[in-house]
Amino acid sequence: MNEKIIEKAGKIIAERACGPENFCALIFVDQKGYPHATTISISKSEGIKWLTFCTGTGAKADIINNCNKAGVCINSSEYHIGLKGTVEQITDPSVKKEMWYDGLKNHFSGWDDPNYCVLRFTTESYSLFVDWQDVKGDL
Amino acid sequence: MNEKIIEKAGKIIAERACGPENFCALIFVDQKGYPHATTISISKSEGIKWLTFCTGTGAKADIINNCNKAGVCINSSEYHIGLKGTVEQITDPSVKKEMWYDGLKNHFSGWDDPNYCVLRFTTESYSLFVDWQDVKGDL
Repeated sequence: MNEKIIEKAGKIIAERACGPENFCALIFVDQKGYPHATTISISKSEGIKWLTFCTGTGAKADIINNCNKAGVCINSSEYHIGLKGTVEQITDPSVKKEMWYDGLKNHFSGWDDPNYCVLRFTTESYSLFVDWQDVKGDL
Repeated sequence: MNEKIIEKAGKIIAERACGPENFCALIFVDQKGYPHATTISISKSEGIKWLTFCTGTGAKADIINNCNKAGVCINSSEYHIGLKGTVEQITDPSVKKEMWYDGLKNHFSGWDDPNYCVLRFTTESYSLFVDWQDVKGDL
């Protein structure tokens, strides 16, 4: 049963990323041990396995360097997609170039802007409420 | 400026709690140090100062007993309300009775059901993006 729900959750993530509701909570653990939630657009995803985000270096990078444990929460009044895993900051120019899209021009000078980076979240475990079913497990 | 944005954020929370989109992410830090996000309905709130939630004892209680640091994230494509603080489990019968509402009958036998409890989140710091303005601070 989990596979079906996992597949559905992956589709919800992909659909959110393509639509007007493209936002999710990407959650870090700050230096004082508090969960630090940010709201961010999803750039790409593969099922519930991983998600990438285009963002600025800075505060988030400091937090990640301290603790790379992270969470993702995508919810609505009908579903909950909760993921736990790790996040890494990708500064590889080829990835930054591949992930670049025009909307980022409002925030950065271009794909080679040193203030622009890509975050990649890799799921280790999931807690899903989709189609009125609760499933939990490790990937 | 912060006061105006804080007031607006408090209104957004109160409006969410009364409408069809009554859900938010209540985030704990699990025993392994990962942010653990849940999606939960808001019962009551006062501005951004505190929020209460009706829920079951069990997994959440175990996490809170281990670490009471928590976060709340309420977001849309237009705003982000991120709060950090602490959460406590309230088992005081008078509070449980006061917070009881009929919808809980689907999950619990009544306000005196030992599996039903109230969680109270108290904000210590905030990070808000409301009306296209970013504000951060401590309460």
